[in-house]
Amino acid sequence: MASSAETRTIADSERCEDVAAHVTRLGQQARRAAAILREATAEEKNAALRAMAAQLEQQREQLRSANARDLEHARQEGLSAALVDRLQLDDRRIDAMITGLETVAALQDPVGEIDSLRTRPNGLQIGQMRVPLGVIGIIYESRPNVTIDAAALCLKSGNAAILRGGSEAVHSNTAIAECIRAGLVQAGLPEACVQRVGTSDREAVGALIRMDEHVDVIIPRGGRSLIERISAGATVPVIKHLEGICHVHVDRHADLDQAREIALNAKCYRYGICGAMETLLVDEAVAADFLPEMARRLGEQGVELRGCDRTRQLIEAGIAEESDWSSEYLAPILSIRVVDGLQSAIDHINHYGSHHTDAIVSQHQGNIRRFMAAVDSSSVMVNAATCFADGAEYGLGAEIGISTNRLHVRGPVGLEGLTTRKYIVIGDGHVRH
Amino acid sequence: MASSAETRTIADSERCEDVAAHVTRLGQQARRAAAILREATAEEKNAALRAMAAQLEQQREQLRSANARDLEHARQEGLSAALVDRLQLDDRRIDAMITGLETVAALQDPVGEIDSLRTRPNGLQIGQMRVPLGVIGIIYESRPNVTIDAAALCLKSGNAAILRGGSEAVHSNTAIAECIRAGLVQAGLPEACVQRVGTSDREAVGALIRMDEHVDVIIPRGGRSLIERISAGATVPVIKHLEGICHVHVDRHADLDQAREIALNAKCYRYGICGAMETLLVDEAVAADFLPEMARRLGEQGVELRGCDRTRQLIEAGIAEESDWSSEYLAPILSIRVVDGLQSAIDHINHYGSHHTDAIVSQHQGNIRRFMAAVDSSSVMVNAATCFADGAEYGLGAEIGISTNRLHVRGPVGLEGLTTRKYIVIGDGHVRH
Repeated sequence: MASSAETRTIADSERCEDVAAHVTRLGQQARRAAAILREATAEEKNAALRAMAAQLEQQREQLRSANARDLEHARQEGLSAALVDRLQLDDRRIDAMITGLETVAALQDPVGEIDSLRTRPNGLQIGQMRVPLGVIGIIYESRPNVTIDAAALCLKSGNAAILRGGSEAVHSNTAIAECIRAGLVQAGLPEACVQRVGTSDREAVGALIRMDEHVDVIIPRGGRSLIERISAGATVPVIKHLEGICHVHVDRHADLDQAREIALNAKCYRYGICGAMETLLVDEAVAADFLPEMARRLGEQGVELRGCDRTRQLIEAGIAEESDWSSEYLAPILSIRVVDGLQSAIDHINHYGSHHTDAIVSQHQGNIRRFMAAVDSSSVMVNAATCFADGAEYGLGAEIGISTNRLHVRGPVGLEGLTTRKYIVIGDGHVRH
Repeated sequence: MASSAETRTIADSERCEDVAAHVTRLGQQARRAAAILREATAEEKNAALRAMAAQLEQQREQLRSANARDLEHARQEGLSAALVDRLQLDDRRIDAMITGLETVAALQDPVGEIDSLRTRPNGLQIGQMRVPLGVIGIIYESRPNVTIDAAALCLKSGNAAILRGGSEAVHSNTAIAECIRAGLVQAGLPEACVQRVGTSDREAVGALIRMDEHVDVIIPRGGRSLIERISAGATVPVIKHLEGICHVHVDRHADLDQAREIALNAKCYRYGICGAMETLLVDEAVAADFLPEMARRLGEQGVELRGCDRTRQLIEAGIAEESDWSSEYLAPILSIRVVDGLQSAIDHINHYGSHHTDAIVSQHQGNIRRFMAAVDSSSVMVNAATCFADGAEYGLGAEIGISTNRLHVRGPVGLEGLTTRKYIVIGDGHVRH
């Protein structure tokens, strides 16, 4: 008889094989669905999105009761109030999911777009056609509404999706997935256009992110640790959304009243969003004029200030340590640094920032131009608050995240970020000489 | 006293540390150079390219004698004639390098381009600005001219380059690199804009492809084994150029004379290029009309034919095994398959092909439209030979390879493929409500 250690090993390896086989099957089905979806018209895809919305409307009762089970379990497990809040699927959030589906249905379908077809001297016409990426794996935490957002954006952009939500939302996600499935069937599209990983086994994530044959891109949505774990383990390309250490730089040629409004809004619009300002930079030439009133207004909002030496000569503030310059507080805390001028501001941002979203407040055209060219961030703003960094604000309709990658897509990722372009070459019997 | 095994271990680890330190230093220098290059004007970059061309012209003697040393060594090592040929740097190839630099200097600079700036309802102007990727690592084999091509394209697109050529071309590459360095200095740009890895130690490649902090993308140029080795080991994103298993499909609505000219050219223009046709698909409705004359013409060129059963009922051909459908021959060999119709052709291409370049010959608008939408390749052609798959033929001026990736860039990679786009957001005191 095998020892218990041996038995456990065998059981583990069987479990892994099952999980691997399950994920492989999902991948194969997704690949086949993607081949059909690639050719689906906008009308067919929109019909599915609208059918999903109708299903959500009809299934409100079931959605709420499935969610109640997740919430009950979360409370038993002692999850934090913030996590329980994210998990919640009340009528307002169900409304938002329905509106989200309608918004995506109303967006222009990017697939098949050929923005120009140039004619070469030999008469060959050459252009690029926008096409789906193929199969997209989405790995996310707690918020069950991501299930519908991700499904909608992937479907509309012609991609098959494999979704892997957090185990804490399993009942909610199952109920939402059933609405998605029913919507697809109603519209005559394959069910495998949107699939869920049917196990909470961690092995499944490992298999998904290394299944290059059947998965074309992985998009993790969640905290830094999730994203780093996935990036480190994936062989499939990952569209990452890392943190936002965002700056506002007050140039010596800024309208200082405007600069205060922008800085206040960038910090206080919402503390927890990735576009919130974490460090305020101020040109030394205007620091004495600018900072005292700025500090007073931030103080009214209860924002804790941490400053460099020069800052602390002008206002009351704690000491900003070296680590403050690379901290994403996501809280009513702000670090402030007085800089020598534009170049110092640019150097600070490119060195300590996270290449997410950074703004200059200035009326000086030359300085604005330099800042826009030199700041190496996915969004560079002029005289606007960093909290505008958001797909809806940018007119993308909806977003699946904000990419901090350099390749493929930077900044808010909408439908276009979920597509790629292939060359089309049209001749009339052309041969090469 | 340490045993000899211990001594070796220590020496090895010291060597590795040296290599790692060397590569890290290159990365840090490249990152600093990239920050300067990001803001360089087209004029400054073009001046450097032209100065490099002038250096090559002046240094012909030195280039040829450095190359003679590599060739001598290659012959001593018994390298194949094909490899020795690739290594050769004669006057014709030096001319081609000089012309290449001038061609790249004449190309439009993509950096800073903002193709549209839309105004949101709240007055915010939002657009995307084309910017360099940052630092590009190029890993290549034998052909020393890649040193200049890669340097030119990276520089013009505003990227710092770290080049790692094959050890067989070390003297040639050193001589070319000296011309590059001198050109950069003459134009007042940092020498570190283009650097060479200064060791042939394999550890250096390993360090380069995992240096996410200082390298933004890796482009391997070489055979399949090089590319697979690098893709497997890299944590930095890789722009891959895998093989071309290219198809021509002769539709039932093709002009059969045109189809024969295209197929002949696609196969025989040059056997060794990635855009060469490897499999010919023929609709059963026209196979009997099409194939005998096609076989005769291919036979005249000495092309060996391997066919499916239905093909072999119509013409003399060897048996195409299952493995033939996924073979990149790069030789005067062609596999031929008679298919039931358009859908079978599409299925065959998407299943057995390498998503590189595939063509349909047809006069039927509906079939052409379906083929273009359904074939999942980086280039899809209509009534043109697959051997047109090439950056220069597409009007890109020059290419650094043909990407078989899905993300970021597919097909020939020119200057645009070496850039990315960041959002620019321009307001006038905009705050979010």
